[in-house]
Amino acid sequence: MAQDTSFDVFDRNCPGRAVMEHIASRWGVLVLGVLLDGTFRFSELRRRVGGVSEKMLAQTLQSLERDGLVHREVHPVIPPRVDYSLTVLGTPIAEQVRGLYVLIESNTAGILAAQATYDERKTAR
Amino acid sequence: MAQDTSFDVFDRNCPGRAVMEHIASRWGVLVLGVLLDGTFRFSELRRRVGGVSEKMLAQTLQSLERDGLVHREVHPVIPPRVDYSLTVLGTPIAEQVRGLYVLIESNTAGILAAQATYDERKTAR
Repeated sequence: MAQDTSFDVFDRNCPGRAVMEHIASRWGVLVLGVLLDGTFRFSELRRRVGGVSEKMLAQTLQSLERDGLVHREVHPVIPPRVDYSLTVLGTPIAEQVRGLYVLIESNTAGILAAQATYDERKTAR
Repeated sequence: MAQDTSFDVFDRNCPGRAVMEHIASRWGVLVLGVLLDGTFRFSELRRRVGGVSEKMLAQTLQSLERDGLVHREVHPVIPPRVDYSLTVLGTPIAEQVRGLYVLIESNTAGILAAQATYDERKTAR
């Protein structure tokens, strides 16, 4: 894969910033994470990504497809079947995202304890 | 650090989901990334995170502080000085986030090419 380090997500005008926003979004991280487990239809994805609306899932998939991270395959059968999967470009990014939420899940107990301490301190003021 | 794998970000009711949303957000990823470089005042952070408003930066820092990922130090000097830094809990999470945007930056050229192909295909229909 071509390495190009001239992009900078901290620069609001860099095209990498918009891509970062598609991926590091409420639903982007979860959709990429689910697709690491395989190829899914829209309805299966929706069931696995708890709480996502049809509209938000469709928008998220469309952004990720446009970015070349997700492949949308329309099967010419009746009734039509549409499958979603990760591309070669999307797979390492999805793996990095999974690393992030695995780390968050494994630290959620500590984070909840920090939240409780913070809230107590605020109340005590 | 305590490992607890009973949390599931795919479950809309899991507290880990809310934490994921603070981190994997437009500004959360960038603030954590900047703080990997050291301790900064609010105004320095705002300068480094291109395009963030005062309000959004304050909200992002407050969420991350409540989650125990960012430490806010108020120095008793005149005029008051407030520094922000990563905590022990926040550092590995920020490193994982940095891994994500380094990967995105290094693939932005490929992603832009995918976007151009997608847009041409849409226009051709």
